[in-house]
Amino acid sequence: MRPVARVAAFLAAVSIPISAVRADEGMWTFDAFPAAKMRADYGWAPDQAWLDKVRAAAVRLTGGCSASFVSPSGLILTNHHCISSCLQDLSSAKTDYLKNGFNAATRAAEKLCPGQQAEVVTQIRDVTAEIKHATGNATGAAAVKARSAASAALESAGCPDTKTTRCQVVTLYGGGQYKLYTYRKYSDVRVVWAPEAAAPQFGGDPDNFNFPRYSLDAAFLRAYENGQPVNTPQHLAWAPRAPVVGEATFVVGNPGSTQRLLTQDQLAFSREISAPMNVTLYSELRGRLISAMKQSPARYREGKDELDSVENALKVYLGRQRAFNDPAFMGRLAEAERDLRAKSANNAAIGNPWSDISTATAAYRTIYVPYRFIQPTSDLYSYAATLVRAAAERAKPNGERLPGYSDSALPLLEKQLLDSKPIVPWLEQLYLEWSLSKAREYLGADDPDTRLLLGKESPEGLARRLVTGTRLADPAYRRALWNGGQAAIEASKDPLIVYARKLDPRYRELTEDFDERYQGPVTAAQAKLADARFAAYGDTIYPDATFTLRISYGKVAGWTERGRAVPPVTLMGGTFDRATGAEPFALPRGFIAAKAKIDPNTVYDFVTTNDIIGGNSGSPVIDRNGAVIGAAFDGNIHSIAGNYGYDGTQNRTVVVSADAIQEALEKIYPAPNIVAELGGR
Amino acid sequence: MRPVARVAAFLAAVSIPISAVRADEGMWTFDAFPAAKMRADYGWAPDQAWLDKVRAAAVRLTGGCSASFVSPSGLILTNHHCISSCLQDLSSAKTDYLKNGFNAATRAAEKLCPGQQAEVVTQIRDVTAEIKHATGNATGAAAVKARSAASAALESAGCPDTKTTRCQVVTLYGGGQYKLYTYRKYSDVRVVWAPEAAAPQFGGDPDNFNFPRYSLDAAFLRAYENGQPVNTPQHLAWAPRAPVVGEATFVVGNPGSTQRLLTQDQLAFSREISAPMNVTLYSELRGRLISAMKQSPARYREGKDELDSVENALKVYLGRQRAFNDPAFMGRLAEAERDLRAKSANNAAIGNPWSDISTATAAYRTIYVPYRFIQPTSDLYSYAATLVRAAAERAKPNGERLPGYSDSALPLLEKQLLDSKPIVPWLEQLYLEWSLSKAREYLGADDPDTRLLLGKESPEGLARRLVTGTRLADPAYRRALWNGGQAAIEASKDPLIVYARKLDPRYRELTEDFDERYQGPVTAAQAKLADARFAAYGDTIYPDATFTLRISYGKVAGWTERGRAVPPVTLMGGTFDRATGAEPFALPRGFIAAKAKIDPNTVYDFVTTNDIIGGNSGSPVIDRNGAVIGAAFDGNIHSIAGNYGYDGTQNRTVVVSADAIQEALEKIYPAPNIVAELGGR
Repeated sequence: MRPVARVAAFLAAVSIPISAVRADEGMWTFDAFPAAKMRADYGWAPDQAWLDKVRAAAVRLTGGCSASFVSPSGLILTNHHCISSCLQDLSSAKTDYLKNGFNAATRAAEKLCPGQQAEVVTQIRDVTAEIKHATGNATGAAAVKARSAASAALESAGCPDTKTTRCQVVTLYGGGQYKLYTYRKYSDVRVVWAPEAAAPQFGGDPDNFNFPRYSLDAAFLRAYENGQPVNTPQHLAWAPRAPVVGEATFVVGNPGSTQRLLTQDQLAFSREISAPMNVTLYSELRGRLISAMKQSPARYREGKDELDSVENALKVYLGRQRAFNDPAFMGRLAEAERDLRAKSANNAAIGNPWSDISTATAAYRTIYVPYRFIQPTSDLYSYAATLVRAAAERAKPNGERLPGYSDSALPLLEKQLLDSKPIVPWLEQLYLEWSLSKAREYLGADDPDTRLLLGKESPEGLARRLVTGTRLADPAYRRALWNGGQAAIEASKDPLIVYARKLDPRYRELTEDFDERYQGPVTAAQAKLADARFAAYGDTIYPDATFTLRISYGKVAGWTERGRAVPPVTLMGGTFDRATGAEPFALPRGFIAAKAKIDPNTVYDFVTTNDIIGGNSGSPVIDRNGAVIGAAFDGNIHSIAGNYGYDGTQNRTVVVSADAIQEALEKIYPAPNIVAELGGR
Repeated sequence: MRPVARVAAFLAAVSIPISAVRADEGMWTFDAFPAAKMRADYGWAPDQAWLDKVRAAAVRLTGGCSASFVSPSGLILTNHHCISSCLQDLSSAKTDYLKNGFNAATRAAEKLCPGQQAEVVTQIRDVTAEIKHATGNATGAAAVKARSAASAALESAGCPDTKTTRCQVVTLYGGGQYKLYTYRKYSDVRVVWAPEAAAPQFGGDPDNFNFPRYSLDAAFLRAYENGQPVNTPQHLAWAPRAPVVGEATFVVGNPGSTQRLLTQDQLAFSREISAPMNVTLYSELRGRLISAMKQSPARYREGKDELDSVENALKVYLGRQRAFNDPAFMGRLAEAERDLRAKSANNAAIGNPWSDISTATAAYRTIYVPYRFIQPTSDLYSYAATLVRAAAERAKPNGERLPGYSDSALPLLEKQLLDSKPIVPWLEQLYLEWSLSKAREYLGADDPDTRLLLGKESPEGLARRLVTGTRLADPAYRRALWNGGQAAIEASKDPLIVYARKLDPRYRELTEDFDERYQGPVTAAQAKLADARFAAYGDTIYPDATFTLRISYGKVAGWTERGRAVPPVTLMGGTFDRATGAEPFALPRGFIAAKAKIDPNTVYDFVTTNDIIGGNSGSPVIDRNGAVIGAAFDGNIHSIAGNYGYDGTQNRTVVVSADAIQEALEKIYPAPNIVAELGGR
């Protein structure tokens, strides 16, 4: 499992609540933790003080991951795979931190992760009334605009200090509720410790989303402010001990996106249109990357993290496709809709939101392909499109801008745009060729959007011309265009800026069309569906995941796979048995060197019944005492279907134990300062 | 559309007849042409003399295509894409016949196509009684073996002269009928003329399976015997003229495989299991090839024909997936099954074959993945597996061998194994890496079959070791192992032979399992279904395609695409308008040079309602007078769903006109000898 931002690409995040919650299902908001239900199942549940303490230590990483403070000096525990792109960005042909690991001997040696920001929720305020009032009777794109404007105003008013705070209006229940989240933010996040990649990536793509697992998918960051480590007295205690089978576990983090109550029409759209495209496109991209990386060791190094991301996303898409092809699973979803329709039949206030969504989904089928392909995929193109769009948007009043360009959103956007970050030209070209050729394939060679994208050029020729001609890889050049505003953009002859200028009007037109015919009507209908669900099922429901803070409870437990029991834990010694000597099952060098010292009976990874999804990566796994016993880094293969529905008999969270991390810090990749700072033993 | 052999890879060819034939539907055997029905629709139908004459000129190419004799001296018309692998095999870095075309100035300059064989049906005999008698009451794998043995015996008896004849027992109606086909065969087939690839491949993958189309997908071969061109007085007349919209057209060729009456359980298997795998696997392979070919111009040349094949196959798989995701289309198939079940309800002799197939399909779900992956994909591995298997099989009596190793099958097998053909090591390695890594992905890293395939090696390491270590690229070495028989195979230390020896027992075990639990029961059930269909619908039905000679009738006609009329013809002059200058829409050099001479109003390509499928490529398109007015080279995008069902409003055959071919022979790639030989104008 990889950061949510990449995995969630292209997925319409439609958040609506689940009807019948079962077993350990649920990604709960902290203000609605189902204590009574947990107490009934487990004989114990956390009280408010416990919840408040844990919440204050939970960290969101803007790269798309979760994390937690684990020392009083801003030390942050997360997954290795959550910082692998940082390690990649900091590496060169001479120093490969991704391959060899990173271990800062002193605080001065800790290195800034480009674009990374750590955020802690400090306040949540219900703003449903304000947003609904602002929307009034507007429909379609007008309703979307009104909500954007109201959100932008609330965010600006809520966080006048944009240097240390960030405000976000979050849509819950697909439009049933709106909440203003205030975050304390830390824009200076540095890497402290990361093992060599072979340890977290042992098993590679074959083992990803599988278990038994032998992965040290952990790393430490540190939050800084004004050049100093941040004081974090609210940190969690560190508990490097073996988990006990059956003990209660909490996962606290930011699940990125679930779609657990799509209507049957929306599911049909996903099954028939978007899911097959995702699998097809990512499979080809994977193949292109694999072969391109074989050209030289440098290319292998430069492409590795990208390939890992693509393979992870592809596995998610394949898992969803499998869920769609499972009649029993799909039957349960259909049954849930039938149940809600039946329970709502006599509720005149609900009307027929299913029909409204059906109409909107039919319209979306006609927009989807051009809307998907009108923005070619590449980091450089993203820079160009952001610069072109931001220049136009920043010239408008806050309330009239596109979402993502409001005053409250600009600081992170600016940081991500201007932070220095290596650009790999061959990768840029590969991505552009791929996305442009796929655009032509799905739109057709004679489509007007294909002509707009390609003119008389081939995908290959155009990609080469754009990548070799642009200066956008230089952060100083980007800064000059950012500061120069609309005039600088209009005057620019940079080929990628010229290209983005050409595509931008069509992108805006398609966005307007999408808002008018899909997003607007669907948000209105989903608000009705949320009402229907509250009426039918009371407050036993939770909102779909929105990459905001949630807590799930569960327990340490294996499961049964095709009649065979899967044990709940692995031991570090098992790594040596599983190793073949060949990638991706080659022993990490550190393990070979420290074999005699490592306690083979240390619990390495374990599984729990907690309900998670992409974005939860790096989440602390917390015991009854509020102490960290591990970091969630994956789900099993069944957890992928969790995007649409949770099955407690099969869905599992995969965790690297604090005990194994401690063992690594002490004996394999020694970091005595961190050991002392954690104070675990 | 490409040759059937590649497209049909991995597809279980299950042949059962269609229930309700409509419009121009049908791939008819020559002994059951529906003359009455055609006469009712068209006011005319061919008589037996017409049919006999046409049949005698129809040629099957063992590479997986169709063709026809068009001169008295063995000249064969087919598609360029049917001989592109031959052109590739004959090319080198110095002489690239694929890119630049081939034009034999004299007969002495005509060059042998490796592995190619031309075959003409001379006799068809019904052997249903013999096969059913031999099978008796056997079931499962025993029934499969009994049928194989009986077929082998019939084939040997029917064609004692294996040098000039070939016999094949063909299963029609999925087991309802068995017929012994006798072919006159020509093992020396030489290329005569082929245009530069840019002309037939204009539009490339984007235009493949689409229309309007501007493609010169034609080429000429010649059949030789004893070093002399074969006399073919039964050839078709050549009619280089414009087709008339609405005129009757016949396509005579060898459609490879259709699956038009799979039961709902079999369709569910395809939709849920095999179709998604095909798309995923081929998409990644396509990506691997695209990037690998970018490494150098030599690699581009060496990989181009392979990539074309893969992209063609992928488009077929994507089209099938789209058909599966079309509820209206799938509903029609479900309705057809309901109708047959209802009509058969009181027919006690039928029993419940649907239930038997359901049970067999459930079993197949458990066998499919290992059976698919136990044979890694590569030409070199195929050589090795064939040599290992043939050594064991040839030591057995004819009736006890695996299908494909009977005395009647050995001559072509031997030719294909021993003909000299270039092997491209990087392609071999790419294919092996791909198929081995996909095997691990789908089977799982801990699966016993994965361990058998990989041992402790990685897919990359194993592929490298096998490809660099083997001598099987050398035809003399292959011949030595073939001649050396079992002793030579057992003594061989060639790493690929050693590897194939290791995998062979498991392959045989899975084949046995497949025969016992799927093929045996399904063949028996399909025979019952054939009985049911004959009882319900009389003899208005035709068997599914089996890469044997069929005739379809139809007419020149466009269709309506999303409300827009697609015209039935394109003109050669349109090529110049459509060209962008960039691949794959760059003008062929020959077209640029001859622009002033080419008559822009010559009909280039056209579409007809004929019912075809992969394998029909190269089929002559014949007018009422029995003359050739073009060569079928593709279907439109809707024709792909024709694997499961024909829709006369949408399915179209795409044809290159004889008129355009004549224009090219006269003015673009001048071949005055062929022009004279064709005698068309």
